[in-house]
Parts: sequence; C-alpha cells; structure tokens
Amino acid sequence: MKQLVSISFIGSGNVAWHLAPALDNLGFVVKEVYSRNPKHAGALTEKLYQAEVKATLDFSTSPSKVFFIATTDEAIADVAREIILPDEAVLVHTSGSQPLEILNFAATPHLGVFYPLQTFSKSKKIDWREVPVFVESSDRHTEEILFALAKGMSGKVKKIGSSERKALHVAAVFASNFTNHMLLHAQQIMKQNGLDYEWLKPLIIETIQKSLSLGPGASQTGPARRGDLQILDSHLDFLRDYAEASQLYRIISQDIINHYHQDD
Amino acid sequence: MKQLVSISFIGSGNVAWHLAPALDNLGFVVKEVYSRNPKHAGALTEKLYQAEVKATLDFSTSPSKVFFIATTDEAIADVAREIILPDEAVLVHTSGSQPLEILNFAATPHLGVFYPLQTFSKSKKIDWREVPVFVESSDRHTEEILFALAKGMSGKVKKIGSSERKALHVAAVFASNFTNHMLLHAQQIMKQNGLDYEWLKPLIIETIQKSLSLGPGASQTGPARRGDLQILDSHLDFLRDYAEASQLYRIISQDIINHYHQDD
Repeated sequence: MKQLVSISFIGSGNVAWHLAPALDNLGFVVKEVYSRNPKHAGALTEKLYQAEVKATLDFSTSPSKVFFIATTDEAIADVAREIILPDEAVLVHTSGSQPLEILNFAATPHLGVFYPLQTFSKSKKIDWREVPVFVESSDRHTEEILFALAKGMSGKVKKIGSSERKALHVAAVFASNFTNHMLLHAQQIMKQNGLDYEWLKPLIIETIQKSLSLGPGASQTGPARRGDLQILDSHLDFLRDYAEASQLYRIISQDIINHYHQDD
Repeated sequence: MKQLVSISFIGSGNVAWHLAPALDNLGFVVKEVYSRNPKHAGALTEKLYQAEVKATLDFSTSPSKVFFIATTDEAIADVAREIILPDEAVLVHTSGSQPLEILNFAATPHLGVFYPLQTFSKSKKIDWREVPVFVESSDRHTEEILFALAKGMSGKVKKIGSSERKALHVAAVFASNFTNHMLLHAQQIMKQNGLDYEWLKPLIIETIQKSLSLGPGASQTGPARRGDLQILDSHLDFLRDYAEASQLYRIISQDIINHYHQDD
C-alpha cells in the first residue's frame, strides 16, 4: 500500500517542472510551489491539480508532509536554513552533487535526497518508469516515505550514499552533457560547410546503439582509435579556423590514442 | 533497371566486412578479395557467395568491373599505383578523408569515391537502408555505376565533393567517436566507484533522443550549461585522481561555458 502524502515544492526549474506533475499524477498531491520568481511558480502550478503559489518560505501551517528543494545547488543550504516547516516534515533535495548534510540546518530531523538520474528540459516529456531514482535518508521514517514516492514513479529505485551519488553525477555529466556537446560541434561543422546535419543522425543513432550493446571500448572506431596520425593531422589542418573544435579534437584524440595504444 | 556489375575488394577491414556482403546480397557479385593478410581476405570470402582470395594486385584478367579500395587511408595511394586493372575498370575508394585525386596514379580514367557514413564494427550488423552513401566520380560512366550500387543499398545517396566529404568526416568524428569516448569515461568512473554502468543507460538514451529532436543547443543541461562554478569545482576535486578524465572535464566544461555564457 502506498502512502499518499501531500507535497510542497521549493524551486520551479527543470527538475521541479517534470517531478512535481509526475508525483501529482500518481496521487501524491502537490499543494504548494515556492519560487524566488513567483511567475515561474505560477507557470508550474498550472500543470498541477491543486497547487497554489507560495509567497514566502513560511510553511508552518502547510498541509504538506514532504518538502522538495529543487532549486539550484547554491540555494539549497539557504533554503534549508530559512524554511519554516510544520511538525514531522520531511525535507528533501534533488541534487546529484550535494550531500545529505547540506540540509542539517533545517529545523526537522527528517532529511533526505531524492535524485532522479535524467536530463530534464522543459519542452521534452519524460518516461518516469525508466528513470532511476537514487534515495538517501537520515532516518527510517524518511526512507519509507521517499521509497514510497520513488517506487510509485520509477521501476528503478536505489539507495546510495552522498559520495557514490557524486561519482554518479560526474559520470552522468560525461554520459549526457559532454556527449551532447560533441553533437553541438558536429552540428556546427556541418552548418558552416553547408552540409545537412540530418545526414549525421543515422550515424549518431547507430553509435549509441552499438556502444550500449557492445560497450564503449569494444565499439570505438575512427582515426584516433586506429592511431591514424595522418588523418588526425589532416583533420586538425581542416579545423585550423575553428579554435574551440580544434582544441577539443586534439585533446580528445590524444586521450583516445593514450587509452587504446598505450602499449604500442 | 539496375546494372548488376561484378566487384573486387582490396582490403578486408571493418568497411569491407560490411560493404562487400551488402553488395553481394543485392546481386552485385563480389568475385575477389585481396588483403595484405590473406587470412583476413579468407575470412571475408566466407561471408560471400562466389568470392575467391586474390594473392596479388594483378587484376588484369579479372571478371570485375568495379574495384573497391577499402584499406587504411595510408595504403590507398600505394594500391592505386600498384594495382593492374582490366580495361574499363572503375576504381573506387571508401575513405571519408581522402580526395578523389589520391587515385590519379591508377591506370584507368574511371575513378570514384563511395563513402558510407557509418561506424562499422565486425560484430555489429548494419541496416544499410539507413546509411547515407556519399558518391564522387571523375566521369559520367563512373557516376552511373556508383549511383546504381549506392541506390541499391541505401535510401540516402548524395553526390558531394572531396572537401565537403572531409568536413563531413570531421563532423562524424565528433558525432560518433568523441560521443562514444565520453561514454567510455562515464563507464570508467562508474566502475571505479563500484556503481553499475547500466544505471546510466536510460539517461544516455534520453540525452540522444532529446538532442536529435530539440537539437544539441536547445537540449543541453548540466552544471556547465548553468554556469554553476561551485559544482564544476567540486567535480574537479572529485576527479583529482583521474588525470585524463579531469583534463577532459575541465576543457569541455570551459567550452560549454564559453558557448552558452559568452555574453554574461
């Protein structure tokens, strides 16, 4: 039996934008949204059934049991210090990089982390069943509530500590932000040469499918993987007018050579 | 009506391994395979209906019309110089980075490039209908033959020149080899922290799907995109024992900041 608790959100960025409606749709009613920018809070409440915009961090009369801090990382400690909570409140942040202890200044013993491992953009829907959720809790009561929320949403719920979560977040930056940034450079090179970025899409899809099935090591190809210095030079020559792309090309190619040819 | 020509392959690496059987299955019979390593040539002929291993580059009595050089880039010019061809032979290379003119030393006027834009690994099958094929030709006769071959295989055949093809290849290195190398680092960080790489897979899939639908610029997220220097510092601190990963983290994050925050 899942326990249907009420929830309030502090913050209305990309994570709150996807997480609050997902919880709401599961019956964990989101009652309040606070944001430094009340317009942003208002936009989020429009996606929710019963939520109201909250003007201050005084939640002393709030009907909610769980308070999600889904702000920027820099703001978490300040919110924990300033927020006024009702009795028995559970206070949770959603950051990959901040420890549980960043919430220690809050006036409640029930502290937790609820970290959904996904890339969130406002204009792209999320399939939550596939999103792993990583939970950390200060106590048994918090853990039970957070697992009820997480298991309602996702088929993949794990308990991990703050230091493992940080490793996970760093790995996620490589897996998501940096892969996507490589695609930005590919797109720019295509555009600046009058070529259609669409032509690269089957290659991108196959690259990722192959990497996920064979593993990134076994599936690597290309001039650096082959140690083909002549092509690397000719590509660097081609990139001489692209300062950023040529620096990345040189350093990443060298790193690939070091990884696959260290015993040559 | 497609013209069913016979074909010989010089080289038996990843491109030949996928391209020769694909042509063979379409009825463009592959008759001969030459490789510096005859064992590799033998392994490829076993995937083909009628092909024999060729021991030398003397093809003067060959039944083939089209000769594919699918060797390393460094070997192409030497093969073009040394190969002995029958009359009216069409000589083609499959490289993204080499110009058509690298074949000029060959004793035939019918020269071409047949560049399939895909990442080829021996253990992973390819859906050729989705692979864009880029064709360049020295003359009308060659162009007709290469278009017949390319259109038999792929739904996406384009005519482009050598300099555009090189831009395409450089962009493809970013889109394929470099994205995959980011996944290698993600995998290593997970492994070295006792975390399951599987947990990142939904994130990787969503990252690419979102990037392909919204574009890499609109879909970028993460600490560098937000200009969150505090998290970047804490991640670099976490990576202090990972020399390669920390260098890449620093340079790619800086490049993301420069791209999205240049006007800050």
